[in-house]
Amino acid sequence: MTTKINLFLVGIGTGNPDHVTRQAEQMLRAANIIMVPHKGPSKSDLADLRYQICDQLLGTDSPPIFSFDLPVRDPDKSYLAAVADWHDAIARIWANTIQNASAKLNRPIKTVALLIWGDPTLYDSSMRIAARLDPEPTITVAPGITSVQALTAAHNIAVNELGAPFLVTTGRRLRDEGFPNDVDTAIIMLDGNCSFTSLNGVEFDIWWGAYLGMPGQILLSGPLDEVSGEIVSRRATARKLARANRPRAP
Amino acid sequence: MTTKINLFLVGIGTGNPDHVTRQAEQMLRAANIIMVPHKGPSKSDLADLRYQICDQLLGTDSPPIFSFDLPVRDPDKSYLAAVADWHDAIARIWANTIQNASAKLNRPIKTVALLIWGDPTLYDSSMRIAARLDPEPTITVAPGITSVQALTAAHNIAVNELGAPFLVTTGRRLRDEGFPNDVDTAIIMLDGNCSFTSLNGVEFDIWWGAYLGMPGQILLSGPLDEVSGEIVSRRATARKLARANRPRAP
Repeated sequence: MTTKINLFLVGIGTGNPDHVTRQAEQMLRAANIIMVPHKGPSKSDLADLRYQICDQLLGTDSPPIFSFDLPVRDPDKSYLAAVADWHDAIARIWANTIQNASAKLNRPIKTVALLIWGDPTLYDSSMRIAARLDPEPTITVAPGITSVQALTAAHNIAVNELGAPFLVTTGRRLRDEGFPNDVDTAIIMLDGNCSFTSLNGVEFDIWWGAYLGMPGQILLSGPLDEVSGEIVSRRATARKLARANRPRAP
Repeated sequence: MTTKINLFLVGIGTGNPDHVTRQAEQMLRAANIIMVPHKGPSKSDLADLRYQICDQLLGTDSPPIFSFDLPVRDPDKSYLAAVADWHDAIARIWANTIQNASAKLNRPIKTVALLIWGDPTLYDSSMRIAARLDPEPTITVAPGITSVQALTAAHNIAVNELGAPFLVTTGRRLRDEGFPNDVDTAIIMLDGNCSFTSLNGVEFDIWWGAYLGMPGQILLSGPLDEVSGEIVSRRATARKLARANRPRAP
Protein backbone atom coordinates (compact mmCIF):
# COMPACT_ATOMS: atom_id res chain seq x y z
CA MET A 1 0.00 0.00 0.00
CA THR A 2 1.47 3.33 -0.98
CA THR A 3 -1.44 5.74 -0.48
CA LYS A 4 -1.93 7.34 2.92
CA ILE A 5 -5.49 6.54 3.96
CA ASN A 6 -7.83 7.99 6.54
CA LEU A 7 -8.89 5.12 8.78
CA PHE A 8 -12.25 5.56 10.53
CA LEU A 9 -12.39 3.52 13.74
CA VAL A 10 -16.11 3.41 14.39
CA GLY A 11 -17.35 2.31 17.82
CA ILE A 12 -20.56 0.32 17.39
CA GLY A 13 -21.37 -0.66 20.98
CA THR A 14 -22.23 -4.24 21.90
CA GLY A 15 -24.26 -5.26 18.85
CA ASN A 16 -27.53 -3.37 19.18
CA PRO A 17 -27.79 -0.90 16.27
CA ASP A 18 -29.68 1.51 18.56
CA HIS A 19 -26.51 1.94 20.64
CA VAL A 20 -24.75 3.45 17.62
CA THR A 21 -24.30 7.24 17.60
CA ARG A 22 -25.25 9.52 14.74
CA GLN A 23 -21.55 10.31 14.26
CA ALA A 24 -20.71 6.60 13.90
CA GLU A 25 -23.44 6.13 11.31
CA GLN A 26 -22.23 9.19 9.37
CA MET A 27 -18.63 7.95 9.39
CA LEU A 28 -19.66 4.52 8.08
CA ARG A 29 -21.59 6.17 5.25
CA ALA A 30 -18.69 8.48 4.40
CA ALA A 31 -16.07 5.74 3.95
CA ASN A 32 -14.96 4.48 0.52
CA ILE A 33 -15.01 0.92 1.85
CA ILE A 34 -15.81 -0.93 5.08
CA MET A 35 -13.54 -3.77 6.21
CA VAL A 36 -15.00 -6.59 8.29
CA PRO A 37 -12.99 -9.45 9.79
CA HIS A 38 -13.79 -13.13 9.59
CA LYS A 39 -12.60 -14.57 12.86
CA GLY A 40 -12.63 -18.16 11.64
CA PRO A 41 -15.46 -20.63 12.12
CA SER A 42 -15.49 -20.47 15.92
CA LYS A 43 -16.24 -16.74 15.97
CA SER A 44 -17.98 -16.07 12.68
CA ASP A 45 -21.13 -14.86 14.45
CA LEU A 46 -19.25 -11.66 15.25
CA ALA A 47 -18.56 -10.98 11.58
CA ASP A 48 -22.20 -11.71 10.87
CA LEU A 49 -23.38 -9.21 13.47
CA ARG A 50 -21.22 -6.55 11.85
CA TYR A 51 -22.89 -7.25 8.49
CA GLN A 52 -26.30 -7.05 10.15
CA ILE A 53 -25.46 -3.71 11.76
CA CYS A 54 -24.28 -2.29 8.41
CA ASP A 55 -27.45 -3.56 6.83
CA GLN A 56 -29.73 -2.08 9.50
CA LEU A 57 -27.89 1.24 9.74
CA LEU A 58 -26.94 1.84 6.12
CA GLY A 59 -29.29 -0.31 4.04
CA THR A 60 -28.60 -0.08 0.34
CA ASP A 61 -26.48 3.08 0.85
CA SER A 62 -23.66 1.07 2.42
CA PRO A 63 -20.17 1.55 1.02
CA PRO A 64 -18.79 -1.73 -0.39
CA ILE A 65 -17.86 -4.17 2.38
CA PHE A 66 -14.66 -6.23 2.11
CA SER A 67 -13.98 -9.04 4.51
CA PHE A 68 -10.58 -10.29 5.58
CA ASP A 69 -9.39 -13.38 7.43
CA LEU A 70 -7.91 -12.83 10.86
CA PRO A 71 -4.68 -14.75 11.47
CA VAL A 72 -4.36 -17.05 14.46
CA ARG A 73 -2.31 -16.03 17.50
CA ASP A 74 0.75 -18.19 18.18
CA PRO A 75 -0.13 -20.19 21.32
CA ASP A 76 3.55 -21.10 21.93
CA LYS A 77 4.79 -17.53 22.36
CA SER A 78 4.47 -15.33 25.43
CA TYR A 79 1.28 -13.25 25.49
CA LEU A 80 2.85 -9.91 24.54
CA ALA A 81 5.14 -11.38 21.85
CA ALA A 82 2.27 -13.35 20.32
CA VAL A 83 0.08 -10.25 20.28
CA ALA A 84 2.81 -8.14 18.64
CA ASP A 85 3.29 -10.74 15.84
CA TRP A 86 -0.48 -10.99 15.46
CA HIS A 87 -0.80 -7.22 15.05
CA ASP A 88 1.98 -7.24 12.41
CA ALA A 89 0.13 -9.95 10.50
CA ILE A 90 -3.21 -8.12 10.68
CA ALA A 91 -1.61 -4.90 9.42
CA ARG A 92 -0.29 -6.78 6.35
CA ILE A 93 -3.74 -8.26 5.74
CA TRP A 94 -5.41 -4.84 6.04
CA ALA A 95 -2.93 -3.42 3.47
CA ASN A 96 -3.66 -6.30 1.07
CA THR A 97 -7.41 -5.99 1.56
CA ILE A 98 -7.31 -2.27 0.77
CA GLN A 99 -5.11 -2.91 -2.29
CA ASN A 100 -7.45 -5.64 -3.55
CA ALA A 101 -10.49 -3.42 -2.95
CA SER A 102 -8.87 -0.63 -4.94
CA ALA A 103 -8.13 -3.03 -7.82
CA LYS A 104 -11.62 -4.50 -7.75
CA LEU A 105 -13.38 -1.11 -7.60
CA ASN A 106 -10.85 0.37 -10.01
CA ARG A 107 -10.37 3.54 -8.00
CA PRO A 108 -8.09 4.71 -5.21
CA ILE A 109 -9.26 4.05 -1.64
CA LYS A 110 -8.84 7.10 0.55
CA THR A 111 -11.10 6.34 3.50
CA VAL A 112 -11.60 2.97 5.17
CA ALA A 113 -14.02 2.26 8.04
CA LEU A 114 -13.70 -0.51 10.61
CA LEU A 115 -16.59 -1.42 12.92
CA ILE A 116 -15.17 -1.75 16.43
CA TRP A 117 -17.04 -3.50 19.25
CA GLY A 118 -17.51 -1.11 22.14
CA ASP A 119 -15.19 1.88 21.90
CA PRO A 120 -12.04 1.96 19.73
CA THR A 121 -9.95 3.41 22.58
CA LEU A 122 -10.80 0.82 25.27
CA TYR A 123 -9.07 -2.58 25.16
CA ASP A 124 -9.03 -2.56 21.40
CA SER A 125 -5.95 -3.04 19.23
CA SER A 126 -7.00 -1.30 16.03
CA MET A 127 -4.90 1.81 16.75
CA ARG A 128 -1.83 -0.30 17.43
CA ILE A 129 -2.37 -2.27 14.22
CA ALA A 130 -2.99 0.92 12.22
CA ALA A 131 0.32 2.36 13.46
CA ARG A 132 2.07 -0.54 11.65
CA LEU A 133 0.70 0.44 8.22
CA ASP A 134 3.11 2.19 5.85
CA PRO A 135 2.41 5.03 5.35
CA GLU A 136 0.78 5.35 8.75
CA PRO A 137 -2.88 6.32 8.25
CA THR A 138 -4.67 9.32 9.67
CA ILE A 139 -7.00 7.99 12.37
CA THR A 140 -10.48 9.31 13.10
CA VAL A 141 -12.34 7.76 16.05
CA ALA A 142 -16.10 7.63 16.61
CA PRO A 143 -16.60 6.74 20.29
CA GLY A 144 -18.97 3.87 20.98
CA ILE A 145 -20.94 2.56 23.95
CA THR A 146 -18.69 0.11 25.79
CA SER A 147 -19.72 -3.20 27.34
CA VAL A 148 -19.10 -1.55 30.72
CA GLN A 149 -21.78 1.03 30.00
CA ALA A 150 -24.17 -1.54 28.56
CA LEU A 151 -23.63 -3.60 31.73
CA THR A 152 -24.28 -0.82 34.24
CA ALA A 153 -27.27 0.46 32.23
CA ALA A 154 -28.79 -3.03 32.13
CA HIS A 155 -28.26 -3.55 35.88
CA ASN A 156 -29.38 0.02 36.70
CA ILE A 157 -26.29 0.62 38.81
CA ALA A 158 -23.73 3.41 38.97
CA VAL A 159 -20.18 2.33 38.17
CA ASN A 160 -18.72 4.27 41.07
CA GLU A 161 -19.68 4.93 44.66
CA LEU A 162 -20.12 8.64 45.41
CA GLY A 163 -16.79 10.33 44.60
CA ALA A 164 -14.98 6.98 44.78
CA PRO A 165 -12.43 5.57 42.32
CA PHE A 166 -12.62 2.29 40.42
CA LEU A 167 -10.13 0.18 38.53
CA VAL A 168 -10.56 -1.18 35.02
CA THR A 169 -8.48 -4.29 34.40
CA THR A 170 -8.53 -7.67 32.64
CA GLY A 171 -9.58 -11.19 33.57
CA ARG A 172 -5.97 -12.29 33.01
CA ARG A 173 -4.71 -9.83 35.65
CA LEU A 174 -7.48 -10.68 38.11
CA ARG A 175 -6.50 -14.34 37.88
CA ASP A 176 -2.74 -13.66 38.10
CA GLU A 177 -2.70 -10.86 40.67
CA GLY A 178 -5.92 -11.21 42.67
CA PHE A 179 -8.37 -8.38 43.38
CA PRO A 180 -6.65 -5.00 43.00
CA ASN A 181 -5.49 -3.06 46.06
CA ASP A 182 -6.81 0.33 47.06
CA VAL A 183 -10.23 0.07 45.36
CA ASP A 184 -13.61 -1.42 46.29
CA THR A 185 -14.82 -1.62 42.70
CA ALA A 186 -13.14 -3.27 39.72
CA ILE A 187 -14.37 -3.63 36.16
CA ILE A 188 -13.10 -6.86 34.64
CA MET A 189 -12.67 -6.79 30.85
CA LEU A 190 -11.81 -9.63 28.45
CA ASP A 191 -12.66 -12.33 30.96
CA GLY A 192 -13.12 -15.36 28.75
CA ASN A 193 -12.07 -17.64 31.59
CA CYS A 194 -14.46 -16.59 34.39
CA SER A 195 -11.53 -15.34 36.46
CA PHE A 196 -13.94 -14.25 39.18
CA THR A 197 -13.99 -17.89 40.26
CA SER A 198 -10.43 -17.37 41.55
CA LEU A 199 -11.66 -14.88 44.19
CA ASN A 200 -12.92 -15.65 47.69
CA GLY A 201 -16.63 -15.43 46.89
CA VAL A 202 -17.86 -14.35 50.33
CA GLU A 203 -15.91 -11.08 50.05
CA PHE A 204 -17.46 -9.80 46.81
CA ASP A 205 -20.65 -8.90 45.00
CA ILE A 206 -20.72 -9.33 41.23
CA TRP A 207 -22.77 -7.78 38.43
CA TRP A 208 -22.38 -9.89 35.32
CA GLY A 209 -23.91 -9.79 31.88
CA ALA A 210 -23.77 -11.35 28.42
CA TYR A 211 -25.28 -10.30 25.08
CA LEU A 212 -25.70 -6.88 26.66
CA GLY A 213 -28.35 -4.72 25.03
CA MET A 214 -29.31 -7.60 22.74
CA PRO A 215 -32.47 -9.73 22.64
CA GLY A 216 -30.69 -12.65 24.36
CA GLN A 217 -29.30 -10.49 27.18
CA ILE A 218 -28.40 -12.44 30.33
CA LEU A 219 -27.98 -10.58 33.64
CA LEU A 220 -26.87 -12.14 36.90
CA SER A 221 -25.85 -10.40 40.12
CA GLY A 222 -25.46 -11.02 43.82
CA PRO A 223 -22.96 -12.22 46.39
CA LEU A 224 -20.18 -13.85 44.34
CA ASP A 225 -20.23 -17.12 46.29
CA GLU A 226 -23.99 -17.47 45.64
CA VAL A 227 -24.08 -16.66 41.90
CA SER A 228 -20.63 -17.67 40.64
CA GLY A 229 -21.65 -21.23 39.77
CA GLU A 230 -24.79 -20.09 37.99
CA ILE A 231 -22.83 -17.56 35.91
CA VAL A 232 -20.35 -20.23 34.82
CA SER A 233 -23.09 -22.65 33.81
CA ARG A 234 -25.39 -20.07 32.15
CA ARG A 235 -22.38 -18.80 30.20
CA ALA A 236 -21.42 -22.31 29.05
CA THR A 237 -24.99 -23.07 27.96
CA ALA A 238 -25.27 -19.77 26.08
CA ARG A 239 -21.99 -20.39 24.26
CA LYS A 240 -23.06 -23.90 23.28
CA LEU A 241 -26.35 -22.54 21.92
CA ALA A 242 -24.55 -19.74 20.05
CA ARG A 243 -22.23 -22.25 18.39
CA ALA A 244 -25.15 -24.45 17.34
CA ASN A 245 -27.31 -21.61 15.97
CA ARG A 246 -24.62 -19.50 14.37
CA PRO A 247 -25.64 -17.93 11.08
CA ARG A 248 -23.00 -17.76 8.34
CA ALA A 249 -21.53 -14.59 6.92
CA PRO A 250 -22.84 -13.85 3.44
CA MET B 1 -46.01 12.78 44.15
CA THR B 2 -48.06 9.64 44.48
CA THR B 3 -47.76 8.02 41.04
CA LYS B 4 -44.86 5.67 40.37
CA ILE B 5 -43.11 7.02 37.30
CA ASN B 6 -40.65 5.52 34.85
CA LEU B 7 -37.59 7.77 34.86
CA PHE B 8 -35.51 7.74 31.67
CA LEU B 9 -31.89 8.70 32.38
CA VAL B 10 -30.65 9.56 28.92
CA GLY B 11 -26.90 9.88 28.34
CA ILE B 12 -26.27 12.67 25.83
CA GLY B 13 -22.48 12.73 25.64
CA THR B 14 -20.52 15.97 25.93
CA GLY B 15 -22.85 18.32 24.07
CA ASN B 16 -22.50 17.35 20.42
CA PRO B 17 -25.88 16.00 19.22
CA ASP B 18 -24.03 13.61 16.89
CA HIS B 19 -22.67 11.78 19.94
CA VAL B 20 -26.22 10.81 20.94
CA THR B 21 -27.29 7.23 20.25
CA ARG B 22 -30.46 6.20 18.44
CA GLN B 23 -31.71 4.67 21.69
CA ALA B 24 -31.22 7.96 23.57
CA GLU B 25 -33.13 9.87 20.91
CA GLN B 26 -35.97 7.32 21.00
CA MET B 27 -36.20 7.52 24.79
CA LEU B 28 -36.38 11.32 24.72
CA ARG B 29 -39.21 11.16 22.18
CA ALA B 30 -41.08 8.52 24.19
CA ALA B 31 -41.21 10.50 27.45
CA ASN B 32 -44.32 12.38 28.63
CA ILE B 33 -42.11 15.27 29.71
CA ILE B 34 -38.42 16.22 29.75
CA MET B 35 -36.97 17.92 32.84
CA VAL B 36 -34.02 20.28 32.44
CA PRO B 37 -32.17 21.94 35.31
CA HIS B 38 -31.29 25.58 35.59
CA LYS B 39 -27.98 25.67 37.39
CA GLY B 40 -28.22 29.34 38.31
CA PRO B 41 -26.67 32.20 36.37
CA SER B 42 -23.08 30.95 36.63
CA LYS B 43 -23.87 27.70 34.83
CA SER B 44 -26.91 28.47 32.71
CA ASP B 45 -25.02 27.67 29.50
CA LEU B 46 -25.39 24.00 30.42
CA ALA B 47 -29.17 24.29 30.58
CA ASP B 48 -29.08 26.08 27.26
CA LEU B 49 -27.07 23.31 25.63
CA ARG B 50 -29.65 20.78 26.78
CA TYR B 51 -32.40 22.87 25.14
CA GLN B 52 -30.32 23.08 21.96
CA ILE B 53 -29.80 19.32 21.91
CA CYS B 54 -33.54 18.69 22.36
CA ASP B 55 -34.23 21.16 19.58
CA GLN B 56 -31.71 19.59 17.18
CA LEU B 57 -32.64 15.99 17.98
CA LEU B 58 -36.39 16.26 18.42
CA GLY B 59 -37.42 19.45 16.66
CA THR B 60 -41.12 20.18 16.97
CA ASP B 61 -41.80 16.56 18.09
CA SER B 62 -40.23 17.21 21.48
CA PRO B 63 -42.24 16.28 24.56
CA PRO B 64 -42.96 19.35 26.73
CA ILE B 65 -39.82 20.55 28.55
CA PHE B 66 -40.06 21.68 32.17
CA SER B 67 -37.12 23.37 33.83
CA PHE B 68 -36.34 23.32 37.53
CA ASP B 69 -33.94 25.32 39.71
CA LEU B 70 -31.06 23.41 41.23
CA PRO B 71 -30.48 24.16 44.92
CA VAL B 72 -27.08 25.29 46.15
CA ARG B 73 -24.78 22.92 48.01
CA ASP B 74 -24.06 23.91 51.62
CA PRO B 75 -20.40 25.03 51.64
CA ASP B 76 -20.17 24.73 55.45
CA LYS B 77 -20.90 21.01 55.60
CA SER B 78 -18.50 18.16 54.92
CA TYR B 79 -18.48 17.06 51.27
CA LEU B 80 -20.52 13.87 51.70
CA ALA B 81 -23.07 15.42 54.10
CA ALA B 82 -23.53 18.44 51.83
CA VAL B 83 -24.04 16.16 48.82
CA ALA B 84 -26.60 14.01 50.68
CA ASP B 85 -28.63 17.11 51.66
CA TRP B 86 -28.33 18.43 48.13
CA HIS B 87 -29.67 15.17 46.68
CA ASP B 88 -32.62 15.25 49.13
CA ALA B 89 -33.43 18.79 48.01
CA ILE B 90 -33.21 17.91 44.30
CA ALA B 91 -35.51 14.92 44.79
CA ARG B 92 -38.13 17.21 46.37
CA ILE B 93 -37.77 19.65 43.45
CA TRP B 94 -38.15 16.84 40.90
CA ALA B 95 -41.34 15.65 42.62
CA ASN B 96 -42.75 19.20 42.60
CA THR B 97 -41.78 19.75 38.97
CA ILE B 98 -43.54 16.55 37.90
CA GLN B 99 -46.62 17.46 39.95
CA ASN B 100 -46.74 20.95 38.43
CA ALA B 101 -46.26 19.53 34.93
CA SER B 102 -49.13 17.13 35.49
CA ALA B 103 -51.37 20.00 36.67
CA LYS B 104 -50.35 22.23 33.77
CA LEU B 105 -50.83 19.52 31.13
CA ASN B 106 -53.93 18.24 32.92
CA ARG B 107 -52.91 14.60 32.60
CA PRO B 108 -50.93 12.09 34.65
CA ILE B 109 -47.17 11.95 34.00
CA LYS B 110 -45.94 8.38 33.69
CA THR B 111 -42.58 8.80 31.98
CA VAL B 112 -40.03 11.53 32.62
CA ALA B 113 -36.73 11.95 30.76
CA LEU B 114 -33.62 13.67 32.07
CA LEU B 115 -30.71 14.57 29.77
CA ILE B 116 -27.52 13.47 31.50
CA TRP B 117 -24.08 14.72 30.44
CA GLY B 118 -21.85 11.79 29.53
CA ASP B 119 -23.24 8.50 30.83
CA PRO B 120 -25.85 8.25 33.65
CA THR B 121 -23.84 5.53 35.42
CA LEU B 122 -20.46 7.34 35.59
CA TYR B 123 -19.96 10.05 38.24
CA ASP B 124 -23.55 11.15 37.98
CA SER B 125 -25.98 11.42 40.87
CA SER B 126 -29.32 11.03 39.11
CA MET B 127 -29.78 7.42 40.24
CA ARG B 128 -29.06 8.36 43.85
CA ILE B 129 -31.51 11.27 43.66
CA ALA B 130 -34.15 9.09 41.99
CA ALA B 131 -33.88 6.54 44.81
CA ARG B 132 -35.11 9.30 47.18
CA LEU B 133 -38.42 9.75 45.32
CA ASP B 134 -41.52 8.23 46.91
CA PRO B 135 -42.63 5.95 45.38
CA GLU B 136 -39.22 5.06 44.00
CA PRO B 137 -39.37 5.27 40.19
CA THR B 138 -38.51 2.56 37.72
CA ILE B 139 -35.22 3.59 36.09
CA THR B 140 -34.31 3.06 32.44
CA VAL B 141 -30.81 4.09 31.36
CA ALA B 142 -29.64 5.03 27.87
CA PRO B 143 -25.83 4.88 27.93
CA GLY B 144 -24.05 7.94 26.57
CA ILE B 145 -20.57 8.77 25.33
CA THR B 146 -18.52 9.90 28.33
CA SER B 147 -16.03 12.74 28.45
CA VAL B 148 -13.34 10.06 28.83
CA GLN B 149 -14.27 8.61 25.45
CA ALA B 150 -14.59 12.02 23.83
CA LEU B 151 -11.12 12.84 25.19
CA THR B 152 -9.35 9.71 23.94
CA ALA B 153 -11.12 9.91 20.57
CA ALA B 154 -10.06 13.54 20.14
CA HIS B 155 -6.45 12.77 21.09
CA ASN B 156 -6.41 9.54 19.04
CA ILE B 157 -5.07 7.57 21.96
CA ALA B 158 -6.04 4.28 23.59
CA VAL B 159 -7.09 4.59 27.23
CA ASN B 160 -5.07 1.56 28.26
CA GLU B 161 -1.66 0.14 27.45
CA LEU B 162 -1.84 -3.37 25.98
CA GLY B 163 -3.60 -5.56 28.58
CA ALA B 164 -2.83 -3.01 31.32
CA PRO B 165 -5.21 -1.65 33.97
CA PHE B 166 -6.13 1.97 34.60
CA LEU B 167 -7.79 3.82 37.46
CA VAL B 168 -10.70 6.22 37.17
CA THR B 169 -10.80 8.72 40.02
CA THR B 170 -11.59 12.35 40.83
CA GLY B 171 -9.63 15.59 40.95
CA ARG B 172 -10.45 15.82 44.66
CA ARG B 173 -8.77 12.47 45.34
CA LEU B 174 -5.78 13.23 43.16
CA ARG B 175 -5.20 16.40 45.16
CA ASP B 176 -5.76 14.74 48.54
CA GLU B 177 -4.05 11.40 47.97
CA GLY B 178 -1.54 11.95 45.16
CA PHE B 179 -1.21 9.78 42.05
CA PRO B 180 -2.74 6.34 42.64
CA ASN B 181 -0.52 3.35 43.43
CA ASP B 182 -0.24 0.28 41.24
CA VAL B 183 -1.24 1.92 37.93
CA ASP B 184 0.58 3.90 35.24
CA THR B 185 -2.60 5.46 33.84
CA ALA B 186 -5.27 7.42 35.70
CA ILE B 187 -8.37 9.13 34.36
CA ILE B 188 -9.17 12.21 36.41
CA MET B 189 -12.87 13.15 36.48
CA LEU B 190 -14.54 16.25 37.96
CA ASP B 191 -11.32 18.21 38.16
CA GLY B 192 -12.58 21.77 38.43
CA ASN B 193 -9.44 22.75 40.33
CA CYS B 194 -6.66 21.60 37.97
CA SER B 195 -5.49 19.06 40.55
CA PHE B 196 -2.80 17.88 38.14
CA THR B 197 -0.82 20.92 39.27
CA SER B 198 -0.29 19.13 42.60
CA LEU B 199 1.78 16.38 40.90
CA ASN B 200 5.50 16.39 40.20
CA GLY B 201 5.28 17.39 36.54
CA VAL B 202 8.47 15.71 35.32
CA GLU B 203 7.03 12.28 36.19
CA PHE B 204 3.86 12.47 34.08
CA ASP B 205 2.42 13.00 30.63
CA ILE B 206 -1.04 14.55 30.40
CA TRP B 207 -3.78 14.48 27.76
CA TRP B 208 -6.25 17.23 28.52
CA GLY B 209 -9.33 18.55 26.77
CA ALA B 210 -12.24 20.98 27.08
CA TYR B 211 -15.44 21.39 25.07
CA LEU B 212 -14.75 17.88 23.78
CA GLY B 213 -16.46 17.06 20.50
CA MET B 214 -17.72 20.64 20.26
CA PRO B 215 -16.76 23.45 17.87
CA GLY B 216 -14.66 25.17 20.55
CA GLN B 217 -12.75 21.99 21.47
CA ILE B 218 -9.39 22.62 23.15
CA LEU B 219 -6.79 19.83 23.27
CA LEU B 220 -3.45 20.00 25.04
CA SER B 221 -1.01 17.19 25.75
CA GLY B 222 2.62 16.57 26.59
CA PRO B 223 4.97 16.26 29.55
CA LEU B 224 3.01 17.63 32.49
CA ASP B 225 5.73 20.07 33.57
CA GLU B 226 5.79 21.57 30.06
CA VAL B 227 2.05 21.95 29.43
CA SER B 228 0.55 22.35 32.91
CA GLY B 229 0.80 26.14 32.93
CA GLU B 230 -0.69 26.45 29.46
CA ILE B 231 -3.63 24.21 30.42
CA VAL B 232 -4.36 26.35 33.49
CA SER B 233 -4.26 29.59 31.51
CA ARG B 234 -6.17 28.32 28.44
CA ARG B 235 -8.83 26.94 30.77
CA ALA B 236 -9.15 30.24 32.62
CA THR B 237 -9.42 32.19 29.36
CA ALA B 238 -12.04 29.79 27.97
CA ARG B 239 -14.14 30.05 31.14
CA LYS B 240 -13.98 33.85 31.08
CA LEU B 241 -15.09 33.85 27.43
CA ALA B 242 -17.90 31.38 28.16
CA ARG B 243 -19.20 33.56 30.97
CA ALA B 244 -19.12 36.65 28.76
CA ASN B 245 -20.82 35.02 25.75
CA ARG B 246 -23.33 32.88 27.57
CA PRO B 247 -26.72 32.70 25.88
CA ARG B 248 -29.77 32.64 28.12
CA ALA B 249 -32.17 29.73 28.46
CA PRO B 250 -35.45 30.36 26.66
